Amino acid sequence: MSLEDIRVVVDAGESSPYQADALSGNAPVLLRELAEHVRQLMAAGEPTAIDLNALPLTPADLDWLKATLGEGEISVTLHSDGESTLAETACPGVWWVTHHNESGHVVSRFIEVAFVPELVKAHPEDVKTGLEYLESLIFDLS
Amino acid sequence: MSLEDIRVVVDAGESSPYQADALSGNAPVLLRELAEHVRQLMAAGEPTAIDLNALPLTPADLDWLKATLGEGEISVTLHSDGESTLAETACPGVWWVTHHNESGHVVSRFIEVAFVPELVKAHPEDVKTGLEYLESLIFDLS
Repeated sequence: MSLEDIRVVVDAGESSPYQADALSGNAPVLLRELAEHVRQLMAAGEPTAIDLNALPLTPADLDWLKATLGEGEISVTLHSDGESTLAETACPGVWWVTHHNESGHVVSRFIEVAFVPELVKAHPEDVKTGLEYLESLIFDLS
Repeated sequence: MSLEDIRVVVDAGESSPYQADALSGNAPVLLRELAEHVRQLMAAGEPTAIDLNALPLTPADLDWLKATLGEGEISVTLHSDGESTLAETACPGVWWVTHHNESGHVVSRFIEVAFVPELVKAHPEDVKTGLEYLESLIFDLS
């Protein structure tokens, strides 16, 4: 069963038409998918990312998932247009990734399964530009 | 010329026998070594680490180096026995790494030249343990 097959059950209450604060029952299914992704990572080194905003998950589901996966030792902050955080969970290789816009609002959330998230790696083109900067610093010193 | 060949010039003043707050002249040489390490990384993907505590650098040298290398977009915090910070410099691929002990004192400093610092990568053995944890979570749910 894949997440696409999950029927979205919305048990509308009186006060909230969406019951956004209630567990939908989809999060445990996601946990099973996640375990499969970790097995793929171990078997073939194949990284994957699950777009949490694209799934029928309530805020309560997200809270449950985050609490269930726990916190690991590593936390990465990336300052680009907005701030991104890439936090290792208590399951090494499983990262909770949140991207914010310049106003600080969450624009996307992912669970990334990878030995190291792609965004943390320096790209060869950027390393080349950095080397040119370093060489210009050295030139200015001489 | 390698750093091992650097003659340590200590221009002892009246108030401080070591002039720890003065530039020794060794930091610009380190910058040249660093550029060579970045070239090695680009040519052969070979990462290196420079142990700053093992070199004849004054605190002023370290401040100058850190300010000269600047700040990049990525900052990594690792909580193990003590806190470690791995901050990308303005030269991608060059990371300023500081390890603290449990009391918060700096115990070592490195400049690491790598696409991604080794410490940030999840190790396969830990990913395997994490998967077992994930499977136990799933088992408890069923």
